[in-house]
Amino acid sequence: MQELRKDPIIGRWVIIATGRARRPGTFIASDKSSLDPQSLKKCQFCEGNEMQTPREVFAVRKSGSKVNMPGWSVRVIEDKAPIFKEDVSLKPKMQGLYEVLDAHGVHEIVVESPDHVANMADLDAKQIKHVIDAYVDRIETLEKDTSLRYVLAHKNYNWSRDNQNIPHTHSQLIATPVIPMRVREELKGARKYYDYHERCIFCDLIKQECSDRRRIVTENDDFIALVPFASRFPFEMWILPKQHHAYFWKGVKGQEASLAQTLKEVLARLKEGVNDPAYHFVIHTGPFSRKKGEGCEFDTIEKDYHWHIEVIPRLTHTAGFEKGTGFYICPIPPEDAAGYLREVEI
Amino acid sequence: MQELRKDPIIGRWVIIATGRARRPGTFIASDKSSLDPQSLKKCQFCEGNEMQTPREVFAVRKSGSKVNMPGWSVRVIEDKAPIFKEDVSLKPKMQGLYEVLDAHGVHEIVVESPDHVANMADLDAKQIKHVIDAYVDRIETLEKDTSLRYVLAHKNYNWSRDNQNIPHTHSQLIATPVIPMRVREELKGARKYYDYHERCIFCDLIKQECSDRRRIVTENDDFIALVPFASRFPFEMWILPKQHHAYFWKGVKGQEASLAQTLKEVLARLKEGVNDPAYHFVIHTGPFSRKKGEGCEFDTIEKDYHWHIEVIPRLTHTAGFEKGTGFYICPIPPEDAAGYLREVEI
Repeated sequence: MQELRKDPIIGRWVIIATGRARRPGTFIASDKSSLDPQSLKKCQFCEGNEMQTPREVFAVRKSGSKVNMPGWSVRVIEDKAPIFKEDVSLKPKMQGLYEVLDAHGVHEIVVESPDHVANMADLDAKQIKHVIDAYVDRIETLEKDTSLRYVLAHKNYNWSRDNQNIPHTHSQLIATPVIPMRVREELKGARKYYDYHERCIFCDLIKQECSDRRRIVTENDDFIALVPFASRFPFEMWILPKQHHAYFWKGVKGQEASLAQTLKEVLARLKEGVNDPAYHFVIHTGPFSRKKGEGCEFDTIEKDYHWHIEVIPRLTHTAGFEKGTGFYICPIPPEDAAGYLREVEI
Repeated sequence: MQELRKDPIIGRWVIIATGRARRPGTFIASDKSSLDPQSLKKCQFCEGNEMQTPREVFAVRKSGSKVNMPGWSVRVIEDKAPIFKEDVSLKPKMQGLYEVLDAHGVHEIVVESPDHVANMADLDAKQIKHVIDAYVDRIETLEKDTSLRYVLAHKNYNWSRDNQNIPHTHSQLIATPVIPMRVREELKGARKYYDYHERCIFCDLIKQECSDRRRIVTENDDFIALVPFASRFPFEMWILPKQHHAYFWKGVKGQEASLAQTLKEVLARLKEGVNDPAYHFVIHTGPFSRKKGEGCEFDTIEKDYHWHIEVIPRLTHTAGFEKGTGFYICPIPPEDAAGYLREVEI
């Protein structure tokens, strides 16, 4: 017996295999890079090797320590091979029916620890709080650049050997003049729901999940972590703030430690429960507010959107047609995944 | 120098790396399964092994040959472990704000050759025409089931070892009561363009591409194969009929041989030019027309939508954040990819 489930936010239908689900323990992670001593010696992200990296743009530092020198706990640097350059034209160019923009933007690396640790799950919550502080500080700074609309704060852990992964825990900030497709769909879906119900769909979802409880993995006073109802991937998790706020960098203020605790627990449950899989997470937030006429078609975001974090482990290869059609098959029911993750000893 | 490009149909922004593009020859395919003699002996898809497969539902056969016996050139069978079952309720169930449907549908396998050939690129155009005939025949039959809205005709070649790939060329038909997300986005995008311009966006796109020529890989009287302007993946190709038609199974009538020739050439150029990569293709078509009130919100499809085939080779691992955000990075400019594919000797 299997079900089709509709993601209530963006309308994507997902097949939930309730019948032939594999048991959680049988998922095996692949493509792991290792922490060999050679890479440790050369690791540009380790404390002491600051001169090997591009320019430092932010750091949480011991008082008295100097820029680009040891003494930091989190360090944000420019990317060595940035996707974007800063000095380009911002005017869209039309080529017949095609629209082109120079890829203006900012690409930065957040080094999450001075020590050579691979998985954020192994950092303590205090250290993860520093990482969140770094995200917030950088996003606040990038907001001042009025050409930017969105900062994609995200992390890949062991995701792919192609990706020149460095086995030292780090995340990335990609600031762009456009809103990513998936976030745009969410903004549209959230507004549509609000127009009809005059309530935030995420707030309603949290209320229902807190009453149902089957898909909740963990919660504290401020945050809830759950496996979404129409999960696309096995053990996919969302972390949602209980208090409504559209913007991550504003809403998280005063709750940084609480978010760090939740994120630590989510990643630790994934590591211990599902064989240390590769994963990524992305912070979904409202975009920068811009004046009307500056590409700001979403003027009701404060009321109808709700920031959150999506965590996706890589446990199955996506079938080809999922890329082509956006029609996903998830091989484990979200309720089973959540139940399993809740019971993992960490 | 890099560009952001907007897919004019669904509005997805893509980063096109014009600066640090890898040269086409440096892409290496991975995860190939092999044609070992053991698998050949046991292959359930080979001629002579018909009794090992589930029920045959269609075949192109020599006259006089019998169902589930040798003598066929293309054979359609039910899937052994179907995603869908046919005998379920069709009523959506609401669980608070969530909507659930039993996964009603049909899942069939199209065995594309009686011989143990792995890649469709190695079939001759006449044989590929038989495959197209099989798609059309099955879709026409499935259309009669009024509970179904869409048939996803697609093919995975060597896509993933997880997927229990059988190294005997075959494709799949998945018939569902819902329209896949990506196709729905296209339908919406195409209608929006038509509302404004009173022209089909795909027809306009073909006209522009035929005049520009840089992204065209091959064409004949009826079809054009091109690398899309806002390509998400390196060497992604679309095959479009020059004559406007919303529905694959109706529009292709009389042009089956011509499509087979184009598909053969596209797949052969991919195989010879890019080191025999894994790939998938999906036929994007208008959904089954249903009466108003039966979930038919797209009533202008005939005028504004245009069926086509999308071919996506697997040459790079998708970065984590692309899954989470729908924000893709394509490491080779479409014009370079098309130019390279045009020059491949086949």
